[in-house]
Amino acid sequence: MEKKLKVGIIGATGMVGQNYLRLLAGHPWFEVAYLAASPKSAGKKYADAVAGRWHMADNIPPEYAGMIVDDAGIVNKAEGKCDLIFSAVEMDKQSIMDLEEEYAGHGFVVVSNNSAHRYTEDVPVMVPEINPAHLDILPEQRKRHGWDKGFIIVKPNCSIQSYMLPLYALLKAGYPVESMIITTLQAVSGAGYPGPASIDLIDNTVPYIPGEEEKSEVEPRKILGSIKGGRIVPDDNIRISTHCNRVPVSDGHTACVSLKFAGKKPKKEEIISIWKNFSGPPQELNLPSAPVPPIIYRDEIDRPQPRKDRDAGKAMAVTVGRLRGCNVFDYRFVGLHHNTVRGAAGGSILAAELLLARGLV
Amino acid sequence: MEKKLKVGIIGATGMVGQNYLRLLAGHPWFEVAYLAASPKSAGKKYADAVAGRWHMADNIPPEYAGMIVDDAGIVNKAEGKCDLIFSAVEMDKQSIMDLEEEYAGHGFVVVSNNSAHRYTEDVPVMVPEINPAHLDILPEQRKRHGWDKGFIIVKPNCSIQSYMLPLYALLKAGYPVESMIITTLQAVSGAGYPGPASIDLIDNTVPYIPGEEEKSEVEPRKILGSIKGGRIVPDDNIRISTHCNRVPVSDGHTACVSLKFAGKKPKKEEIISIWKNFSGPPQELNLPSAPVPPIIYRDEIDRPQPRKDRDAGKAMAVTVGRLRGCNVFDYRFVGLHHNTVRGAAGGSILAAELLLARGLV
Amino acid sequence: MEKKLKVGIIGATGMVGQNYLRLLAGHPWFEVAYLAASPKSAGKKYADAVAGRWHMADNIPPEYAGMIVDDAGIVNKAEGKCDLIFSAVEMDKQSIMDLEEEYAGHGFVVVSNNSAHRYTEDVPVMVPEINPAHLDILPEQRKRHGWDKGFIIVKPNCSIQSYMLPLYALLKAGYPVESMIITTLQAVSGAGYPGPASIDLIDNTVPYIPGEEEKSEVEPRKILGSIKGGRIVPDDNIRISTHCNRVPVSDGHTACVSLKFAGKKPKKEEIISIWKNFSGPPQELNLPSAPVPPIIYRDEIDRPQPRKDRDAGKAMAVTVGRLRGCNVFDYRFVGLHHNTVRGAAGGSILAAELLLARGLV
Amino acid sequence: MEKKLKVGIIGATGMVGQNYLRLLAGHPWFEVAYLAASPKSAGKKYADAVAGRWHMADNIPPEYAGMIVDDAGIVNKAEGKCDLIFSAVEMDKQSIMDLEEEYAGHGFVVVSNNSAHRYTEDVPVMVPEINPAHLDILPEQRKRHGWDKGFIIVKPNCSIQSYMLPLYALLKAGYPVESMIITTLQAVSGAGYPGPASIDLIDNTVPYIPGEEEKSEVEPRKILGSIKGGRIVPDDNIRISTHCNRVPVSDGHTACVSLKFAGKKPKKEEIISIWKNFSGPPQELNLPSAPVPPIIYRDEIDRPQPRKDRDAGKAMAVTVGRLRGCNVFDYRFVGLHHNTVRGAAGGSILAAELLLARGLV
Repeated sequence: MEKKLKVGIIGATGMVGQNYLRLLAGHPWFEVAYLAASPKSAGKKYADAVAGRWHMADNIPPEYAGMIVDDAGIVNKAEGKCDLIFSAVEMDKQSIMDLEEEYAGHGFVVVSNNSAHRYTEDVPVMVPEINPAHLDILPEQRKRHGWDKGFIIVKPNCSIQSYMLPLYALLKAGYPVESMIITTLQAVSGAGYPGPASIDLIDNTVPYIPGEEEKSEVEPRKILGSIKGGRIVPDDNIRISTHCNRVPVSDGHTACVSLKFAGKKPKKEEIISIWKNFSGPPQELNLPSAPVPPIIYRDEIDRPQPRKDRDAGKAMAVTVGRLRGCNVFDYRFVGLHHNTVRGAAGGSILAAELLLARGLV
Repeated sequence: MEKKLKVGIIGATGMVGQNYLRLLAGHPWFEVAYLAASPKSAGKKYADAVAGRWHMADNIPPEYAGMIVDDAGIVNKAEGKCDLIFSAVEMDKQSIMDLEEEYAGHGFVVVSNNSAHRYTEDVPVMVPEINPAHLDILPEQRKRHGWDKGFIIVKPNCSIQSYMLPLYALLKAGYPVESMIITTLQAVSGAGYPGPASIDLIDNTVPYIPGEEEKSEVEPRKILGSIKGGRIVPDDNIRISTHCNRVPVSDGHTACVSLKFAGKKPKKEEIISIWKNFSGPPQELNLPSAPVPPIIYRDEIDRPQPRKDRDAGKAMAVTVGRLRGCNVFDYRFVGLHHNTVRGAAGGSILAAELLLARGLV
Repeated sequence: MEKKLKVGIIGATGMVGQNYLRLLAGHPWFEVAYLAASPKSAGKKYADAVAGRWHMADNIPPEYAGMIVDDAGIVNKAEGKCDLIFSAVEMDKQSIMDLEEEYAGHGFVVVSNNSAHRYTEDVPVMVPEINPAHLDILPEQRKRHGWDKGFIIVKPNCSIQSYMLPLYALLKAGYPVESMIITTLQAVSGAGYPGPASIDLIDNTVPYIPGEEEKSEVEPRKILGSIKGGRIVPDDNIRISTHCNRVPVSDGHTACVSLKFAGKKPKKEEIISIWKNFSGPPQELNLPSAPVPPIIYRDEIDRPQPRKDRDAGKAMAVTVGRLRGCNVFDYRFVGLHHNTVRGAAGGSILAAELLLARGLV
Repeated sequence: MEKKLKVGIIGATGMVGQNYLRLLAGHPWFEVAYLAASPKSAGKKYADAVAGRWHMADNIPPEYAGMIVDDAGIVNKAEGKCDLIFSAVEMDKQSIMDLEEEYAGHGFVVVSNNSAHRYTEDVPVMVPEINPAHLDILPEQRKRHGWDKGFIIVKPNCSIQSYMLPLYALLKAGYPVESMIITTLQAVSGAGYPGPASIDLIDNTVPYIPGEEEKSEVEPRKILGSIKGGRIVPDDNIRISTHCNRVPVSDGHTACVSLKFAGKKPKKEEIISIWKNFSGPPQELNLPSAPVPPIIYRDEIDRPQPRKDRDAGKAMAVTVGRLRGCNVFDYRFVGLHHNTVRGAAGGSILAAELLLARGLV
């Protein structure tokens, strides 16, 4: 990388925006050259704009503290300053869709953390180890909008990464899956800041997260889908059902997964071997944020655990354990990933790295 | 009740024993007349024997503080003092089996909290709303051992109550169930004292509880079984698979349940109605510890929750919520019960009340 | 009590208002006859007005569920419906002062949970065991405002009860205190709902609570003050310095207290005896909410603890322990009380009971 | 460092031992060349000896996994293998004193984590920024025992580092302190593994830690003492009184400190400046584990907090905040440090680095 790609962050003052800044500090390929947020932050130094609401454990990276925050709503402010926009704005769905499209229309590559465009048929929901092939939809997306250069991709909901890589590794190895029943134990950081009230998670868990089960059931099918007739057609062969719980954990979503194969059923040792040996384009392309290996299998009977395993592989790996038979389906296992890194900003950065390595930005 | 039945507690100084004392204080039918524990407690006043390890929130009930603790291993110490023994001893499995049999052999009715005898074919695993019919095995049990008066019954593992009553209510209403996949979020009190290390449950959950999944899968089938040829034959028609997690909750086990019916499938409203209207022998017999109703269905989207629902029905009710369809099976729901009351000492006391009401003690 | 006194709650839908309803259900002297809140709740049934934000563990007491909520801002709505108003409104300080004065001007006795009037010189800050003598200021208060019947009293901040009763018991026994240095570990419920973000109290504590240290240092001096020249003059003889921490506890504030006497210094045994034998007007008048005894001293080395001691004396008692010498001052001890009962709604109800027993309402 | 110093760890399988291994992996000056533990671990590979009880978040550093563990009780096993011994054995006080003396007698430099020798008059309790001058006692220590090469130093209790550096910085700047009243909120890792029971720290705090207050009051005076007549004479000019609480935090001890100067009293700005500019021998000698700066002052009103500040300066810095006046003493502030790094293994490693830099090993 002789010269770094200039990137911008819209919604830079929120929790996800802060995570972007934290993760992009010292990034070998990207240079944060543009920060934008709501009008009330516009014109302020970044450090002032987030004063009293910087929630990362580390201090604000000094290179960003003095940057002036622009108004994310005035798209041409970004022109000439950066080529790729990480979108972390918090608005209603339609406003986000419109704004991201406006950025794309102005020639920016938009990598979004938001769910708004996840159900748009020509917008890929990227998990870089799984569906880089979906990037082939981009010419269609541009054509539909009449864009010449810009486009939009999104990252999936933070609840599904714990099982998407393990699932995909099995599919790729030739073992189609028919059904999955999944219960998640999700960290509070997944709800942004302030997120759940403290009193609701002291000596307590909450068996409901708004919208989460629907996302968890729909998004995997799109990620595993294929391009047909100018749109990404979901894979309807797999059925997924989820229970999503909020638990008193800061970071790290756990998934208890029961799985039924569609056809032949590999032996336990083979599954573990498939997982341990799995790698995808991010690993092959040596992307800076790619975890190596992407899936870690732990033999200890009581792992993975959020506090012990969430930071594995620079918080980008998925840790799996407790693979065992099942009285009802074929197998059971436990998966875990870091929801605000692999499941949010880190996942988007990995997707952006893939775009750059593929020459798409 | 003109005169109370005299009962004894063996293992009276442990966590379960303390719960027995707490729950039996002021009991309308039972009077605690005998306390026994390990030899090192023997001869001491109860308050001295538990000094520094009384873990209940309330103080030691004053009527027990001055009682002299006997050696649980010397069975004839109990003779003449009580008729029914609540067993909460902590020893290896064989020793517990032997000791409980010795008490029964001396004419005592033994109601045990331990798992030791749960797999003995002529020992009922009692859930008083479900399987009082299993008490018909008792003559066989006595005959096999040559006992004239004593016998043994046990209560099931504390992890299953959240779904056993809701499941049984459906079976009883004529809707056989084929499969259940269950993930539990279990409170730390289920592990006794000290139980898990604090550091393992701060900002963390643990996806494994030794022995718990096996018990959760086997015991329900025995509870739903029928007496054939002098033994309780498990119901093999239902398949259960569980994931058991330990979470930072003091009391209250949550179960996320996915359920598939064997045949016809009731509508959602019918299921809720079945649950709301369910009652069993404890309710019909007006047993002092019977919750009325035994199953509470909550309409709020985010209930049941441990801190808010564990104490429902004097901590003896099972609270259910979030009944909804399922992409893979037929229905999903969440159940919750208080693990150290309904799931342990309270469940045993209810079983003892049933014995008394039925004239079996 | 032949006929119950009719009381109203303004701010009935908030966390404190909910606690009032919970504690007043079945009260022997008071009948809740009027509920008011903000205009957006006005006209609704109470159950509808708090739908989705009822945070008590128990259900809404059925006698209140169907009551129509009025607009707290329209004072004459309350007329004829009740005689005493519990104020739990959440607004800016001046608006609260004005509204409470308007209710008093309309002839209502106002017992307020808010801090707004705590620093008004002729408004008593009531701790019923300590300063009923401050009720003698009420004629002055009425005269100043030209009120004939109504008046205002307030309860103190929830952080101080853990040490105010123990302190006052010593003063009353003839042992004036010169200095106290106090560190509190405060429960999250003290901040209302939603209160602190969950992520700020997972694997964490926060060494700051806005405004709390100032209140903790000023209010005790007023409570211990005396009436001079038509105003309550604070006791300047005692100096108090506090550190207030927020900790991951639902209910129950702990205070670690170091104390220096002004003159003679009682022996440890004498202090414990003073505390154990302390009682005040609420106990002597047999007020329904009065804890007997008001101060509980526990001998165990590791008590008081929030989960084990907050509910002592119907959550109205103060539990004290660990009295020991001090290298710097004279003594150290630990105090604990239930912040949303004794420290909030329960404390106000006790004050209202005192008013009724004294014939002031 | 051309060649690394070979070091050994006795008590290598316990929690503190594991922390040593974690912190010494890749250390630029030290090479772990000897591991010893109890007889039941002796002869096993390290990975096998700690199987099921490795509690660090990271995996066992691979360079140690295969090392054979020796019996810590057989001192001559260590001979020829290393020059310096980190002692983390867990035994009764007298046995630890004897064993550490035996190692010293065999020519080893012993740097101990244990409290056993903290009260031995010629054994320095080292805080490398504060009392390197106490190393001058070592010839006396050797002489008394007749040792030629070995000696013993110890690190202080983990509860005091949050205020020792801030206190010492003030003393060094010419502001003697008369009194300190301190309340600590201590993490559970300070109690080793398993430490407190989980149920005792869910929705709870515990106002007592065995032995902790005594250590916290005595050790600072020795650390600030001076060598007179062949022994370290404590500084009796400062009086310290502590309340020690256990709170549900994994790592990071917080101290709420009230402080009274003996004479002149610096302004707030001067104190902050003194802290910010403080440095000691570890910083001047560029010791590998020395935090730069050793004291961090944070301006935010709600810092320091355990989760946000414990890792500052590679978890070796002390973070201070909330300096403000006091109604009773002169100032109040909050200090925080990482108890298992700065307060335990990391503090000992820093002390060992000082020994090496000073040519004492």
